[in-house]
Amino acid sequence: MDKKIVGVLGGGQLGRMFVEAANRLNIQVNILDAAKSPAKQISSHEGHIEGSFKDPQSINALAKTCDVITVEIEHVDTYVLEKIAKENSNLAVEPSWQTIRMIQDKYAQKEHFQKNDVATATSMALQDATTEQLQLVADKYGLPYMLKSRTEAYDGKGNYVVKSADDFAGALDALGSRPLYAEKWANFKSELAVMVVKTKDGVLAYPAVETVHEDSICKLVYAPARSVSQKILTAAEDLAKKAVACFSGKGVFGVEMFLLEDDSLLINEIAPRPHNSGHYTIEACPISQYDAHLRAILDLPISQAGLRIKEPAIMLNILGAADPESAVQIAERSMKAVPETSIHLYGKGAARNGRKMGHMTVTAPTMREAEQLMQPLIDITDEVRGKKSPPVSLSSSSGALVAVIMGSYSDMNVLDAGVKVLKQFGIPVEQHITSAHRTPDWMNEFVHSAAGKGIEVIIAAAGGAAHLPGMAASHTTLPVIGVPVKPSIGDGLDSVYSILNMPRGVPVATVGVNNSTNAALLAARILGVKHKAVESKYEAYVENAKGEVMEREKALSEDGWEACMAAWHGKK
Amino acid sequence: MDKKIVGVLGGGQLGRMFVEAANRLNIQVNILDAAKSPAKQISSHEGHIEGSFKDPQSINALAKTCDVITVEIEHVDTYVLEKIAKENSNLAVEPSWQTIRMIQDKYAQKEHFQKNDVATATSMALQDATTEQLQLVADKYGLPYMLKSRTEAYDGKGNYVVKSADDFAGALDALGSRPLYAEKWANFKSELAVMVVKTKDGVLAYPAVETVHEDSICKLVYAPARSVSQKILTAAEDLAKKAVACFSGKGVFGVEMFLLEDDSLLINEIAPRPHNSGHYTIEACPISQYDAHLRAILDLPISQAGLRIKEPAIMLNILGAADPESAVQIAERSMKAVPETSIHLYGKGAARNGRKMGHMTVTAPTMREAEQLMQPLIDITDEVRGKKSPPVSLSSSSGALVAVIMGSYSDMNVLDAGVKVLKQFGIPVEQHITSAHRTPDWMNEFVHSAAGKGIEVIIAAAGGAAHLPGMAASHTTLPVIGVPVKPSIGDGLDSVYSILNMPRGVPVATVGVNNSTNAALLAARILGVKHKAVESKYEAYVENAKGEVMEREKALSEDGWEACMAAWHGKK
Repeated sequence: MDKKIVGVLGGGQLGRMFVEAANRLNIQVNILDAAKSPAKQISSHEGHIEGSFKDPQSINALAKTCDVITVEIEHVDTYVLEKIAKENSNLAVEPSWQTIRMIQDKYAQKEHFQKNDVATATSMALQDATTEQLQLVADKYGLPYMLKSRTEAYDGKGNYVVKSADDFAGALDALGSRPLYAEKWANFKSELAVMVVKTKDGVLAYPAVETVHEDSICKLVYAPARSVSQKILTAAEDLAKKAVACFSGKGVFGVEMFLLEDDSLLINEIAPRPHNSGHYTIEACPISQYDAHLRAILDLPISQAGLRIKEPAIMLNILGAADPESAVQIAERSMKAVPETSIHLYGKGAARNGRKMGHMTVTAPTMREAEQLMQPLIDITDEVRGKKSPPVSLSSSSGALVAVIMGSYSDMNVLDAGVKVLKQFGIPVEQHITSAHRTPDWMNEFVHSAAGKGIEVIIAAAGGAAHLPGMAASHTTLPVIGVPVKPSIGDGLDSVYSILNMPRGVPVATVGVNNSTNAALLAARILGVKHKAVESKYEAYVENAKGEVMEREKALSEDGWEACMAAWHGKK
Repeated sequence: MDKKIVGVLGGGQLGRMFVEAANRLNIQVNILDAAKSPAKQISSHEGHIEGSFKDPQSINALAKTCDVITVEIEHVDTYVLEKIAKENSNLAVEPSWQTIRMIQDKYAQKEHFQKNDVATATSMALQDATTEQLQLVADKYGLPYMLKSRTEAYDGKGNYVVKSADDFAGALDALGSRPLYAEKWANFKSELAVMVVKTKDGVLAYPAVETVHEDSICKLVYAPARSVSQKILTAAEDLAKKAVACFSGKGVFGVEMFLLEDDSLLINEIAPRPHNSGHYTIEACPISQYDAHLRAILDLPISQAGLRIKEPAIMLNILGAADPESAVQIAERSMKAVPETSIHLYGKGAARNGRKMGHMTVTAPTMREAEQLMQPLIDITDEVRGKKSPPVSLSSSSGALVAVIMGSYSDMNVLDAGVKVLKQFGIPVEQHITSAHRTPDWMNEFVHSAAGKGIEVIIAAAGGAAHLPGMAASHTTLPVIGVPVKPSIGDGLDSVYSILNMPRGVPVATVGVNNSTNAALLAARILGVKHKAVESKYEAYVENAKGEVMEREKALSEDGWEACMAAWHGKK
């Protein structure tokens, strides 16, 4: 496709998946790494360089073979890259050596963010690795705080949590030989990540995802992030774009951030390359992060539309255990348990503890279904690795697609027929008593949070003043179906009017008095637009209903009016 | 993943995409083909065999290196495979050599179908290639008929349409040196294809797709097939499974069939391997046809759930033109026009006329959106290839997601506000006059076909007897919103009752009298469950509505009651 040749420093899993994308476009990628490294296994040509991506001579040799140099890891010799970039006007280094150099030093990275007004954890450099300096940080930031190596830190290596003065010795023991900085403790409720694409024209972003770490290594990625409002997701994407925009060069960047208790966001750190938190894009997005990186560094076209998530996805890393065969065991057992899982093995040979050997991605029409597919894979992984990790939280959802709400206990009897229909259709449902008048705040809170929890339709029953359906519709953009309940006084028309005559702007789908069956069937029709399985069940239901009527017709034709009337009186 | 080594006869594009799937599972694939063939380019190890997949010696050499042998093309020497299979109990040939041999002879294939009660075009073998035999066929089948070579036929090569006795000479000229058979002309309205997976346990099928051929070469694949009822799609999948089940061996099979004018189906032919009509599965399904083939021949787990289509997809072949650079031109221009396209180039070097150089796939939440993405790619391909192909039919849809129907012209005025809301939300809408009483058949026909045309919500307005919404709901499983229209006599409550009081079993979502605004907003809420873009617009609408009320509140606070009343009287 493009006649340009790309050189990559490093041929691990990120290089391998990058090559996979380049192969599809027939773009030659020359890998600098050991023979038979993961990336080289899937690229057969004479342009690769054998050697270490840390070796200046090898880097220079690679530079001679290509038009653009990029990296799969940021711990490279940026002085060699600087020299190469300056001496070869025809050779591009993407992202720029300046960017890589600054990102290598995590404190410099943070200073750069602060200078560019990008929200990040408050931090300070340590003059030297001494107890006095550690005490100084404690005085300034309080305890606990995070002590970090400025360089060569990844997957939690180079981090130390200082909880009290008792930890000083241990911290110096672990990190004392390195240049250090300290970060004020960030009380985050979850971790988000955004893959950003920096092109010649600007920055684009994939949707914000949720990352779950175990022993400081990324374990799970939920795309998009669960139980986070659209407003926060958009803020995360904007912050990530702002952070990447202040660096020079092209390519994708992995941006990790903290979502704090007060819903504010802080950048944790960024990686100037494809990132573990972006593996899900291979299955979930029209353009993967690897394809995006390739296009960005070669000035090939790329669009925001290509970065959308087609359906919710969850990625689980296959981390090795002590047994060299452990990764293969995880993969084999996972494929058996959930055959529709997309499995990526990196061609790394023997597993060892914590080594990234591969990953698995599941996608499904809803996050809840993806979670259900993923759970056995987590269990298998934990079992093979001998981990008893804390249970991974599910999305706050009960899994319900329909919420049935009512103002009082007495409405249950009316709603029972509808609930039965939903269950007959296999539609997960949850029920709540939320009175518009007696618990207005609880109603407000429940309805507001419904969409974020995975609810797609609300059925609300009410009688008399019958405000619940209309008030529910006022607090959500989900479709709300109102069931007018016949009160003890009145014929139910009063309930109908209250529900039907909503002002222009806030619609309620009204059904007949006490007709919760039709409310449930309407919910099934609405869900059927999105969920094929519900649509199929509805078609079967219609056939069945037709059959029932035709059976009566047959009986009437064959047995005659009198016999049928007799039967009617007998058992109605 | 699996320690077994797979050998493939042929290293073209099908072999290449097969290797891509195997790479992800770290399964070694040894390719028998020329050096640097497409499949070998993405697989770097010492196990490949250089040679022709037609050469017995090379096939034997390959057999020595692997545990399972498969093919990327059926035109192989099955006698060598037979010998290998019989002499090596540890080596599996998948699918079996018997299957490949029978499929190679298209007439034997057809006889086999007939024997197994699989619907296929009526056909007869020719004793020899003579005018007399051709006349015999004409006498028996009438004209036109299809004359075909029994062997070595693909992409339309080996087919000749005999329209009249004048064609006899030309037909013999073209095909006279081959073994021949004739097929009765099948008047088909479209061509469907189904990828079937034959495992050790049974047969599974991907959804039926629609194929569009140009010059007898597959040009476009629509997945799932458009404008075909679910019943026909299921019948196609069942027929394909039945056809494949009567062959021995494991792997994927491409089944091509004709959909006739009377909605019956005939098998055209099958291929014992991954197929052009299944390329779309790479992007559209959890498990691609290549992954499925690999798993089937290695007895690895596979499930029907992995064969679902995540979102509608369209595949376009990149066929070469005379210019050696033509395929790259198509790819480059297509990427620029629609960057979210997934492009696959096969590493074949120079293009030539009609050569399959690559393919492109787009996916989108709806088929209509996929069609819109695909159209520029078709235009570019046609332009570069100097083709002025007939315009590709769009799905019968107008692209509308909402149909607004009414019983009479006079309802338009009531519906206008709602139609404006839908347009404001960017929701494509179509309007029809379909009276339940005066055009019951047209109403029936329209409503019945609505779902197949892409309509997802119906808004029906009616006054007085007001049967239209309820009758519409009786003819579809789509959600139907009823707008009661105030008749010239009566207050509209009569209309409300007719729409609201539907019997249990057939729900209509009723809104207030004349309130088409709320009907449209309800439609938007329903669509928002599936379409994120509509949901976002709804949120903006709510914010805006809130803003408008708050502005009034501000005016009232600041200007006072009297000034506001004066303004009210002035301009209401």
